[in-house]
Amino acid sequence: MVESVPNEATEKDISALNDALKEERMGAVTRIVNGIPGAEVALFLESLPVDKRQAVWEVVDEASQGEVLVSLHDEVRDNLIEGMDTDQLVEATRDLDLDDMADIIVDLPEEVSNQLVLSMDKASRDLLNQVLSYDEDSAGGLMNPDVVTVRTDVTVEVVKRYFQFRGSLPTPVGDLFAVGRKGHYIGRIPLGTFLTSDPKTPIKDIIDEDAPAILDKTPASEVAQDFEHNDWISAPVVDDKNILIGRITIDDVVDVIREEAERSVMRMAGLNEEGDMFAPILTSSKRRAVWLGINLLTVLLAAFVIGIFEDTIKEIAVLAALMPVVASMGGIAGSQTLTLMIRGMATGQVGSGNIKDLLSREFMIGVINSFLWAAVLAVLCAFWFKNWDMSVVLGLALGINLVTGALAGVLIPVVLRRMSIDPAIAGGVILTTVTDIVGYVSFLGVATWLLIA
Amino acid sequence: MVESVPNEATEKDISALNDALKEERMGAVTRIVNGIPGAEVALFLESLPVDKRQAVWEVVDEASQGEVLVSLHDEVRDNLIEGMDTDQLVEATRDLDLDDMADIIVDLPEEVSNQLVLSMDKASRDLLNQVLSYDEDSAGGLMNPDVVTVRTDVTVEVVKRYFQFRGSLPTPVGDLFAVGRKGHYIGRIPLGTFLTSDPKTPIKDIIDEDAPAILDKTPASEVAQDFEHNDWISAPVVDDKNILIGRITIDDVVDVIREEAERSVMRMAGLNEEGDMFAPILTSSKRRAVWLGINLLTVLLAAFVIGIFEDTIKEIAVLAALMPVVASMGGIAGSQTLTLMIRGMATGQVGSGNIKDLLSREFMIGVINSFLWAAVLAVLCAFWFKNWDMSVVLGLALGINLVTGALAGVLIPVVLRRMSIDPAIAGGVILTTVTDIVGYVSFLGVATWLLIA
Repeated sequence: MVESVPNEATEKDISALNDALKEERMGAVTRIVNGIPGAEVALFLESLPVDKRQAVWEVVDEASQGEVLVSLHDEVRDNLIEGMDTDQLVEATRDLDLDDMADIIVDLPEEVSNQLVLSMDKASRDLLNQVLSYDEDSAGGLMNPDVVTVRTDVTVEVVKRYFQFRGSLPTPVGDLFAVGRKGHYIGRIPLGTFLTSDPKTPIKDIIDEDAPAILDKTPASEVAQDFEHNDWISAPVVDDKNILIGRITIDDVVDVIREEAERSVMRMAGLNEEGDMFAPILTSSKRRAVWLGINLLTVLLAAFVIGIFEDTIKEIAVLAALMPVVASMGGIAGSQTLTLMIRGMATGQVGSGNIKDLLSREFMIGVINSFLWAAVLAVLCAFWFKNWDMSVVLGLALGINLVTGALAGVLIPVVLRRMSIDPAIAGGVILTTVTDIVGYVSFLGVATWLLIA
Repeated sequence: MVESVPNEATEKDISALNDALKEERMGAVTRIVNGIPGAEVALFLESLPVDKRQAVWEVVDEASQGEVLVSLHDEVRDNLIEGMDTDQLVEATRDLDLDDMADIIVDLPEEVSNQLVLSMDKASRDLLNQVLSYDEDSAGGLMNPDVVTVRTDVTVEVVKRYFQFRGSLPTPVGDLFAVGRKGHYIGRIPLGTFLTSDPKTPIKDIIDEDAPAILDKTPASEVAQDFEHNDWISAPVVDDKNILIGRITIDDVVDVIREEAERSVMRMAGLNEEGDMFAPILTSSKRRAVWLGINLLTVLLAAFVIGIFEDTIKEIAVLAALMPVVASMGGIAGSQTLTLMIRGMATGQVGSGNIKDLLSREFMIGVINSFLWAAVLAVLCAFWFKNWDMSVVLGLALGINLVTGALAGVLIPVVLRRMSIDPAIAGGVILTTVTDIVGYVSFLGVATWLLIA
């Protein structure tokens, strides 16, 4: 009886690697690194400061270097590629699948890419050029042009024998795609049906002709949704003449989904390109400075607004202590609504069909929370300062700003989208600017009007 | 020649549905709803206010209602289930895969679940109970117990004939799993190898015995990472005695990945359970109120701190206008670091091995941006107020708070994690509390010390 190895979690691998590295047991590092999948090696390399990263990279088997390079964030990859010579690079990358090679070849030094292309046969070269002609984030850029197709005028048995003759199949093995004489896509043969059919069954009897193909220009995010909604393992890609030019497989789609999710979280914090946790300090400082600069402009605007009420604050200095409460609560309420809107837009669930319903619903929620927290804060304030007038001012301003936050949370992403700006990047900054300014103006304004007489 | 239908994007389907619904063309709604995948119907239903949702749900074919229910967020599902009678529910759910049924059965009224269980044969009932015995977010809860296994003492041809005899295979068809006489897991037979091998090849010659199985108790997030790193389509699940008890397929893993990504974004905004965009207004108001309440406590703390410096502000009221600049910039710098840390922790890349390196790196970036923005702001302030002393105060406080933000961004998630608190939920609130308070204290404190004499 053969015992299977229970599955090791990535985290355990990485922590074992860290221990070995700390104690400088490079033998152990080498053994672990070359026993785990390339994607895990990539994660580990990314978690290391640059000097250690280089040391570990040098012990990765040449045979798996290509797979590791494919899994790395662009920035880390470029960093490692810089330290490799032409022969090493050609060796590492020449056995990659065509779709992976297309991803990586644009980042390689020209000398290496030329040599790679020269070492290919003409057919592969043409296929590679086809993939390269597409945007990286489109179906054409995601697809692997190496696809097994079957003709409709043969039987299941013939196809099975062809597979044995071929000796290997591109992985993962998914449904088969039927094409006509001129290469046009006809339909999908579900793998399960193929495997359970009588060998004499003609292929044409088991084709699902309703199964759609993906158009080459379809954006990657739409491809991902199609895969999710249809539980596909693979899908055919066609050009505008319905010629089958490749197939997309779920493993690449999973990468798209993960990258999109990561990007949207990073963008909310103004981190557009921070692929390398250990990028050079000056590079990172510069990138972050841009976001800090944008934020500075918006808070200076708020500061200017507060400045208008300088005389009021001079008279009642405690207003300065309370005004951030009003601004902040509006921002929190607004960002909850904004988050829901951004999620809904990403799934296609928020659109012209239901914006009005959403707006009135968020407005109502804003009103209810306005009353609740205006009351709580007014009572707190009355006890704290023994000043009912101040309570009224605070409650009123808070109420105004909570409703403002809710409405802004719905409207800002709608407007940004119309302007083709990603609400996940700009939405949060604009929202806080609105709730800060409305918060300060309403609080200090009402205070000036009611308390200063 | 058969023309294939080019693939329609979800968004187009949803917008066509919205148009039809608005114009009350229920015939068109029915036709579209029953021509798209269940997952898309689910998305559409979720995008509708409750009354319209009910109207559309009623035109969904009974045969696909089960699939739609499985794809809905729990909250929306419960809502629709409430409106269905026992017969309808049994009809809709009885043909579901066992893993899907296990997900849904806990939400069904007892009468329905009893009837469902009674309508099953004993074998299926046992399998269902096995899945139900696991946590929903573990490998055991994700797996489908309906798995095709092969014995090692037969040939490829025998297995192929068995498939034909069986007539259908669970989808997606992935690698085959070899088991021993007592059901223990032996290894994986890659589907590609199986299909390309000579029919006379003994199964035992093409088993990959190094391919690991997943332990039943493994958390879902780890399962997802394993699938991603190994590009699996399916994987075997074993219990602690190495008995093969089911298999997990990539389509369910994709759902896990999507849900995790969604949850982490929602949690950052304190939206824990907002699965239904159109949940009852009072329910949503209550949920959001909790987050607003937590935020109120933290800003009141900040207000209290500002209150300490009331006399200073009374004297120099313009400080009140400038203090939010210091607080806000620290918060922005900190949240960038925090976002990177949370991402790194989720991928397992941030751990005890590199915290020190990250801390010193983020500290350096904080220092560089401190100098930069302190200088910019000091100069701006000098021009604005013609007051160099104020410039110095502002620059100094900003510098302190930017570095504080960077350090807090690294340390807060580390500490939270040690306390087993999800940094994505609490990290942001704690971070802003720290940068607000440090920002106000440093600015007003230095101002009191340098400007009031």
